[in-house]
Amino acid sequence: MTTTALKEFFPGIGKIEYKPDAGPSETLVFHHYNAKEEILGKTMEEWLRFSVCYWHSFRGAGMDPFGASTIQRPWEDGTDSVDNAKRRLRAAFEFFSKLGNKYWTFHDRDIAPEGETLAETNTFLDQLVELAAELQKKTGVKLLWATCNLFAHPRYMHGAGTSSDAHVAAYAAAQVKKGLEVAKKLGAENFVFWGGREGYHSLLSTDIKADLDHLAAFYKMVIAYKEKIGFKGQLLIEPKPKEPSRHQYDYDAQTVMSFLHQYGLTQHFKLNIEPNHTTLAGHPYEHDIIFASAYGMLGSIDANTGSPDLGWDTDQFPMDIRSCTMVMKTVVEQGGVAPGGLNFDAKVRRESTEPKDLFIAHIAAMDTFARGLKNAAKIISDGILKKSLNDRYLSWGLGTGAKIASGTFTLEECEKFILESGNPKPSSGHQEHFEALFNNYI
Amino acid sequence: MTTTALKEFFPGIGKIEYKPDAGPSETLVFHHYNAKEEILGKTMEEWLRFSVCYWHSFRGAGMDPFGASTIQRPWEDGTDSVDNAKRRLRAAFEFFSKLGNKYWTFHDRDIAPEGETLAETNTFLDQLVELAAELQKKTGVKLLWATCNLFAHPRYMHGAGTSSDAHVAAYAAAQVKKGLEVAKKLGAENFVFWGGREGYHSLLSTDIKADLDHLAAFYKMVIAYKEKIGFKGQLLIEPKPKEPSRHQYDYDAQTVMSFLHQYGLTQHFKLNIEPNHTTLAGHPYEHDIIFASAYGMLGSIDANTGSPDLGWDTDQFPMDIRSCTMVMKTVVEQGGVAPGGLNFDAKVRRESTEPKDLFIAHIAAMDTFARGLKNAAKIISDGILKKSLNDRYLSWGLGTGAKIASGTFTLEECEKFILESGNPKPSSGHQEHFEALFNNYI
Amino acid sequence: MTTTALKEFFPGIGKIEYKPDAGPSETLVFHHYNAKEEILGKTMEEWLRFSVCYWHSFRGAGMDPFGASTIQRPWEDGTDSVDNAKRRLRAAFEFFSKLGNKYWTFHDRDIAPEGETLAETNTFLDQLVELAAELQKKTGVKLLWATCNLFAHPRYMHGAGTSSDAHVAAYAAAQVKKGLEVAKKLGAENFVFWGGREGYHSLLSTDIKADLDHLAAFYKMVIAYKEKIGFKGQLLIEPKPKEPSRHQYDYDAQTVMSFLHQYGLTQHFKLNIEPNHTTLAGHPYEHDIIFASAYGMLGSIDANTGSPDLGWDTDQFPMDIRSCTMVMKTVVEQGGVAPGGLNFDAKVRRESTEPKDLFIAHIAAMDTFARGLKNAAKIISDGILKKSLNDRYLSWGLGTGAKIASGTFTLEECEKFILESGNPKPSSGHQEHFEALFNNYI
Amino acid sequence: MTTTALKEFFPGIGKIEYKPDAGPSETLVFHHYNAKEEILGKTMEEWLRFSVCYWHSFRGAGMDPFGASTIQRPWEDGTDSVDNAKRRLRAAFEFFSKLGNKYWTFHDRDIAPEGETLAETNTFLDQLVELAAELQKKTGVKLLWATCNLFAHPRYMHGAGTSSDAHVAAYAAAQVKKGLEVAKKLGAENFVFWGGREGYHSLLSTDIKADLDHLAAFYKMVIAYKEKIGFKGQLLIEPKPKEPSRHQYDYDAQTVMSFLHQYGLTQHFKLNIEPNHTTLAGHPYEHDIIFASAYGMLGSIDANTGSPDLGWDTDQFPMDIRSCTMVMKTVVEQGGVAPGGLNFDAKVRRESTEPKDLFIAHIAAMDTFARGLKNAAKIISDGILKKSLNDRYLSWGLGTGAKIASGTFTLEECEKFILESGNPKPSSGHQEHFEALFNNYI
Repeated sequence: MTTTALKEFFPGIGKIEYKPDAGPSETLVFHHYNAKEEILGKTMEEWLRFSVCYWHSFRGAGMDPFGASTIQRPWEDGTDSVDNAKRRLRAAFEFFSKLGNKYWTFHDRDIAPEGETLAETNTFLDQLVELAAELQKKTGVKLLWATCNLFAHPRYMHGAGTSSDAHVAAYAAAQVKKGLEVAKKLGAENFVFWGGREGYHSLLSTDIKADLDHLAAFYKMVIAYKEKIGFKGQLLIEPKPKEPSRHQYDYDAQTVMSFLHQYGLTQHFKLNIEPNHTTLAGHPYEHDIIFASAYGMLGSIDANTGSPDLGWDTDQFPMDIRSCTMVMKTVVEQGGVAPGGLNFDAKVRRESTEPKDLFIAHIAAMDTFARGLKNAAKIISDGILKKSLNDRYLSWGLGTGAKIASGTFTLEECEKFILESGNPKPSSGHQEHFEALFNNYI
Repeated sequence: MTTTALKEFFPGIGKIEYKPDAGPSETLVFHHYNAKEEILGKTMEEWLRFSVCYWHSFRGAGMDPFGASTIQRPWEDGTDSVDNAKRRLRAAFEFFSKLGNKYWTFHDRDIAPEGETLAETNTFLDQLVELAAELQKKTGVKLLWATCNLFAHPRYMHGAGTSSDAHVAAYAAAQVKKGLEVAKKLGAENFVFWGGREGYHSLLSTDIKADLDHLAAFYKMVIAYKEKIGFKGQLLIEPKPKEPSRHQYDYDAQTVMSFLHQYGLTQHFKLNIEPNHTTLAGHPYEHDIIFASAYGMLGSIDANTGSPDLGWDTDQFPMDIRSCTMVMKTVVEQGGVAPGGLNFDAKVRRESTEPKDLFIAHIAAMDTFARGLKNAAKIISDGILKKSLNDRYLSWGLGTGAKIASGTFTLEECEKFILESGNPKPSSGHQEHFEALFNNYI
Repeated sequence: MTTTALKEFFPGIGKIEYKPDAGPSETLVFHHYNAKEEILGKTMEEWLRFSVCYWHSFRGAGMDPFGASTIQRPWEDGTDSVDNAKRRLRAAFEFFSKLGNKYWTFHDRDIAPEGETLAETNTFLDQLVELAAELQKKTGVKLLWATCNLFAHPRYMHGAGTSSDAHVAAYAAAQVKKGLEVAKKLGAENFVFWGGREGYHSLLSTDIKADLDHLAAFYKMVIAYKEKIGFKGQLLIEPKPKEPSRHQYDYDAQTVMSFLHQYGLTQHFKLNIEPNHTTLAGHPYEHDIIFASAYGMLGSIDANTGSPDLGWDTDQFPMDIRSCTMVMKTVVEQGGVAPGGLNFDAKVRRESTEPKDLFIAHIAAMDTFARGLKNAAKIISDGILKKSLNDRYLSWGLGTGAKIASGTFTLEECEKFILESGNPKPSSGHQEHFEALFNNYI
Repeated sequence: MTTTALKEFFPGIGKIEYKPDAGPSETLVFHHYNAKEEILGKTMEEWLRFSVCYWHSFRGAGMDPFGASTIQRPWEDGTDSVDNAKRRLRAAFEFFSKLGNKYWTFHDRDIAPEGETLAETNTFLDQLVELAAELQKKTGVKLLWATCNLFAHPRYMHGAGTSSDAHVAAYAAAQVKKGLEVAKKLGAENFVFWGGREGYHSLLSTDIKADLDHLAAFYKMVIAYKEKIGFKGQLLIEPKPKEPSRHQYDYDAQTVMSFLHQYGLTQHFKLNIEPNHTTLAGHPYEHDIIFASAYGMLGSIDANTGSPDLGWDTDQFPMDIRSCTMVMKTVVEQGGVAPGGLNFDAKVRRESTEPKDLFIAHIAAMDTFARGLKNAAKIISDGILKKSLNDRYLSWGLGTGAKIASGTFTLEECEKFILESGNPKPSSGHQEHFEALFNNYI
């Protein structure tokens, strides 16, 4: 398995085509996603900015806490060598080219093996980054975001920036330094922090205030270095409530925003929202996306889903048209999510062991989002839903409402108003009408 | 039932005594709570600052969504009259006096009936406030906090400060104006906002950003009026994730802190944490108490519990010694929770229909917290747990750790440190040791 | 308000029409539900057997645990009189006639007031039953099922058949006797038991084995009396995991089946499955429907939904096309759910205060189920999904598989087979293909 | 690392002693567990029947879905060889001997490596079984139960007995044949089935009825072979609701009982209840233990706990005195759990990397259960709680209650009784009194 140049990794699968008339069982074509089709002034490709993640789709092999790997990819030789890593990367770019996504994402440790020392690890990484640059150039696929894996190695078991051992935090810092350099080199449009081990298992053995102080100090070093080297990508924090930690510090969108305020970091970060994390935090699927967007903080989206009856992150491919419509409605309303995108942080089930399952999963999710985009565009261009919403809030634009909203009113004036004008009149919220209206677009 | 002056409302129950040697079945005495016993320089009474809430214990009658009221108090005549309200208030103060709590709490609408107009309502309220002032003076029981009920009346179905109808927000503002005046008059040490209807049922029909802007404007009017009239109590916001709204804006401690930062309100509010709300938000029981305390925001505690297997607020009396130890450990470590306290926002089960059940429930909870306080004091004075915790974080006080923590280090220096000093050494977190150690205090 | 004969209760709303070309904002017409349209050999009406429930839609007024009633129906005079009950019943039948559902359901105490004694209560009930019989005859609307309310009255706070007080169980038995007689009189096609108070709040104060023994004895009396009076309706038990009890004995479908087996009652009951209860028990939405159907126990369906992020029963109108497709797929596969039906055990939100909201909610849910039915019919008539499923299980029809399945094989023979034929070959489960295939029908 | 005969695997740790006066920080001694101390006619050892599980404590190395192994045991050489397996087994028996537990449990694949073929695998297994027999004899430690691992190997990804591939089911059957033989040889007192992969991920691609039919056929082969070879151990099924499957068929105790009834298997199995599974199924911690016991089906207990705020199985060591008191109360009330026991299906946290953490965790859990046993014994010998419970149910032993309970009453007689004797009298459930009473024993 020494030469890989001529090999086709996904034989029998060509470029995935748009065939709107294909039958229900044809799951290796797009029924809805038509990259160059224009919608509300942009192509579908520009609105959706689909990205394939490297970790699930090219490093995941179906292991779970109760079972061994189930998936054997033909290009894997079972070693953790640089050669194997390179072959895997070529396979990935063939996949991207056939699928037609324009972006990919990775953790540093996904693409290259870890050495005995940081120096050796960086050498390995450099070799793969070089290949990645070459493959990006060749295929036109770009890097949506890079990130550092600060959670898988045993050294990070107590956290990275929040480790109880400062030596570990220093190691993480050194790793991020390299990560930023790599991101710059590959033209990453964003750089993500996901603090899977930044949290606690037991409140008895954790000093949460110290941990968060350390994390803020860590981020300040990151910002300084980012500016120093002129990396222009957007920094993103990805909230998750729990797992692997019992409780993570970046619980949800509002929690991260609170942290950023507490340490004066708001202008340096946006959020990368993953709806499977949002639901694990107890919110509706689209809650954090809408919240982050409302405060100008929606930077990117990890497009996936969980099963609502499960209490852990299943990272399934998003297949629900309704949810994807809500997400795309928010994205279109804020004028797009660039420089972020829709990154499929999703994995095929461990029982879906064939390479074609990887295609089918991505295609179906892209089609689902394409339907979501079309529905959203119709909702927005019709304007009926927006009109109904505005009608509900009409009173805030007039008289007393406008005065309260603008901060020029007082409790005494409110009391005077009520004593003079009497009790408010009841009005229906018509939620079922809104739901029925929305259903008529799905 | 026209004269109430001489009536005893809880006949057969006298002042509850401390009898440490009472048998297990004697549940109308304190086995552990000894108000004047000194612990770490304060009496138990001073540390615990127990408060009885008026709504559950004197307005709750056992109604639930599937059933009618089960509890018939002998002093109730079935009317919503001012007379009945007065008699009820007298009953409450007899209860406080016999139980031995030094504080109470109420919503404006708990103590007095609502009239046809705000003006009439305020007249009713004034009469009850006068009686409350008299009873407070007579018994020495003080007002831990007052609050306005901005959720029960149909007018608030769409929210109060966040109602889609600005007329409703104005009504709420007028109500809070009076609430602050009443709080001042009765010497309330705090004033609480719980936004049960400040949230959403459907993201289709809600403009969350508008809602939160309106809420912030509302609070700014409150602050201005509080300062104008010279009310010195601490303002508190009480987080709750959901119920009655599908999703409330004040989800948890960090979410409220984020809101306060977003609108520049942090210096005007602290938090009133209810652990049953904390667990509904997906956190461990003591999480929000510890988090709020870490950021100097723990203002008061609504001492209750839920059943961890239930998804709604059951407001049970706190009976778990372990949880109460964790709470009191935090309270003692921050030097006490005054001017806040431990308010029993808890209700007897609807099947616990006898007046004596009300005593038993409060007594058992007070005993549980007394045990928690004693355990916490022993943990703190022994210092063993703290020492173990400090040992875990030792590296942050020295060399590289200290430099990172103080913000004087860079990513480059971290990299240099790692290249020179090598990989961090693994260390055990010893969580089970911490747990075993803790168990030895319970 | 003494004469009601000529009154129209829903002025301005006529018979709801099927208008497939209506725009998205027209929510007072059917876009999809066309009662007489034939699908796979039955009309939509025959497959769907829609029923309106009386309790939510004609007794619910928007009260919740934190707020008073919000909904004022014009026909209500605020009394609990027989006259008011009659007027309300006429309003309901006007609603049914305009909406076009062919069935209704009620609890005994929904339709008539409770008197001082059981005798008096039965007298009231008789008057309303007489009117119901007349209205049923006049409108052609039939009774899908009746049930007894054994949970709302304070007497049932400790349970009905499982009350710790046998006097209460006797009362419940007497009430059910009358309920069966009423069901017979009104031609109920089923009779439902929902044990909202048959459960526990505390395992410390409950003897669960005694409770279930008592419940079984209770059901045996019911069966005997049903047979004695010749009531031909199907008896149904409706599972629910919790709420109002902390834990109900009829947790979910399998739990009820276990109980029926433990007490030799399986042949006398089927199940009435409510998906909002299924999700509260931790299962996927359609799980209990599929499970009950698999064991021939699916008797009827309470068509509603919850919000997956909430831990209590919200009884929302079912608006999710995907879920309704899964339900109807099961129903069509078992050849229909008659004598059961799809009963809208759902309520308008308490903020949806206008009478037309009641129409919109039902219409939208009926449309959603109509879409579900059409999707399901297409899936079944295409046969592609079924074929894919059969392919997965092919090996069970042949050789070793067939022998194991038929019970004629032994562990020794299995061992011999494996030693001879070797390890099984891996095969993909293709879950994403199934999902994509399914999405192509939605 | 070729000779292991003389090696001490846990140097510096001797036989764990009972030292009731040890200080809080001394976590390598028993403060409460005193094996030979007699309580209600049995020794603590006889009541508690502690067992150490091999998989977590000797095969677990701290891997989780987001990170690599953290724990390096000194006796592990990194290979999957028989030699390494033998050395590991010796280490385990040293651990058991020092800790003082009298039982252990294992899966077949825990103790010996898997070969290329079943035949080879069985050869490896035989070698380890021989050593295990020798070590059991030498140390006096006995086998509480054995089980087959039918979930970890990729072949079981679609299930074992319920695999969609019958070849896999045959393989599982062959494996269980050997498992039963091993169990017999080592004198296992029980044999457990945990169906981690017997469930579904998607209801679209699963035929649940076929799966359960196959599972029942599988168990019938097991029963036949068990009887044939004369294995006298008790067969146990261990319920779990979900994880690794999205939904397992053995959801909880009642679900398994239902399955056993549906297929006529009740007399052949009891249940092995794991409370962490019970809580994941939405029940209170002790629910399934109490339920199984009530129906004579409590066979054994997997003593562990989860964190109530997490949605997956964390298998933590049980440290909560209250919960352990409830468990032991049930065990003592049914006269003991033999031939089952309390098996610590619990793992040290992956951050607890030192060998002594393994001791501390077990010791602390044993102490917690010892406290639970003492509390339970006191509750039972005092009889106050039982008396209070009996008082609640008094009416069922007399008159009408006794007649209903005995099945000799009718609905007509109930009605007659109510018409004559009137409404039941309200009575308080006194839940808080029960809780306070219980707390006085903790």
